[in-house]
Amino acid sequence: MRLGILGTGTVGQTLGTKLVSLGNEVKLGSRSASNDKVAGWVKTTGRGASHGTFADAASFGEMLFNCTSGMASLDALRQAGAKNLDGKVLVDVANPLDFSKGMPPTLAVCNTDSLGEQIQRAFPEARVVKSLNTMSARVMVDPKKVPGDHAIFVCGNDATAKSQVTELLREFGWKTVLDLGDISGARGAEMVLPLWVRLMGTLKSPNFNFIISRGDM
Amino acid sequence: MRLGILGTGTVGQTLGTKLVSLGNEVKLGSRSASNDKVAGWVKTTGRGASHGTFADAASFGEMLFNCTSGMASLDALRQAGAKNLDGKVLVDVANPLDFSKGMPPTLAVCNTDSLGEQIQRAFPEARVVKSLNTMSARVMVDPKKVPGDHAIFVCGNDATAKSQVTELLREFGWKTVLDLGDISGARGAEMVLPLWVRLMGTLKSPNFNFIISRGDM
Repeated sequence: MRLGILGTGTVGQTLGTKLVSLGNEVKLGSRSASNDKVAGWVKTTGRGASHGTFADAASFGEMLFNCTSGMASLDALRQAGAKNLDGKVLVDVANPLDFSKGMPPTLAVCNTDSLGEQIQRAFPEARVVKSLNTMSARVMVDPKKVPGDHAIFVCGNDATAKSQVTELLREFGWKTVLDLGDISGARGAEMVLPLWVRLMGTLKSPNFNFIISRGDM
Repeated sequence: MRLGILGTGTVGQTLGTKLVSLGNEVKLGSRSASNDKVAGWVKTTGRGASHGTFADAASFGEMLFNCTSGMASLDALRQAGAKNLDGKVLVDVANPLDFSKGMPPTLAVCNTDSLGEQIQRAFPEARVVKSLNTMSARVMVDPKKVPGDHAIFVCGNDATAKSQVTELLREFGWKTVLDLGDISGARGAEMVLPLWVRLMGTLKSPNFNFIISRGDM
């Protein structure tokens, strides 16, 4: 499958490497097509890996991943071009973390809206699925790094798109994929970040996740 | 120990029953001292259980619990009287859930502030500890109802107060008590509610909780 990843940071590169290792062709996109950081990634990753602009990656991919920083996501997606998103599954991995007011970060949007919803509204023909935003990049692509049957969330307005993303998550090794409903479920998935950031401090590690344990009652 | 609980709903009554069963004297407080609902609770619970106004409960308790609905908490605490809170540990169990815009609820305060912080600011001499707000009332007082080593959070500005609350939580059966730092950690603990509400829908049960699983990396 041909996959386009917007964003060339740790999350984009880590997801890209995993997706190439699973036999996909992956194009990472950034603001500028010439990007030393991603050129190194392409060389290291080898066959199946390429890079270009946001628009190059978006037009290349049959399925797309938004791995840009949340504050820059809408702009990056506009650069990618609405017509390159139309009808495609767009996995929104980003969190609207605002570091401008110091640490811990706040959210640039929350409560009555979410980044996932903003993206879906801005690009109504894209099939946005919020997922993968509630754990570190290493855990995203290798859930076995954390013990136990910990959970990943999906939500979105298109059931088929959620099924396709769930199938891909199972290839990554995810067993418990919990559906939070339509794209407004992104509020729940994104608003866990303030707890996540504090737990990273308490646990002194970003490599943890939530097991949802349910009683019989 | 003498404990005062503000709020006579499910959370207040469930906590009250548990605290009486552990050998404490518990006074539940409500807006009005004559309250049929809580009179039934007092009769059923028996020795050690009593009720009165918010001020009665607050002046009675050596340690206090805010179990009012989050939208009404500051008003209830004002009725309890600042002088009845001074120097006391005040466990803030409430969530600022706003049901006025329909389901799922939004939060009346979040992101750059929290109910826990609002209470601490309004009553600077109280020793506010946010805890117990991230699970159903049944799970709060009987963590064994949910399998596994699931977690409860505490945060607050006073280390001694957090220790006292942690000790009480251990009496309830809590093993993993995670400290989220100062009272601003209440943002993390309260902002998990939108996810919690959606998971309740997905799991079709309020009786679940989060196990925090950490990798070795």
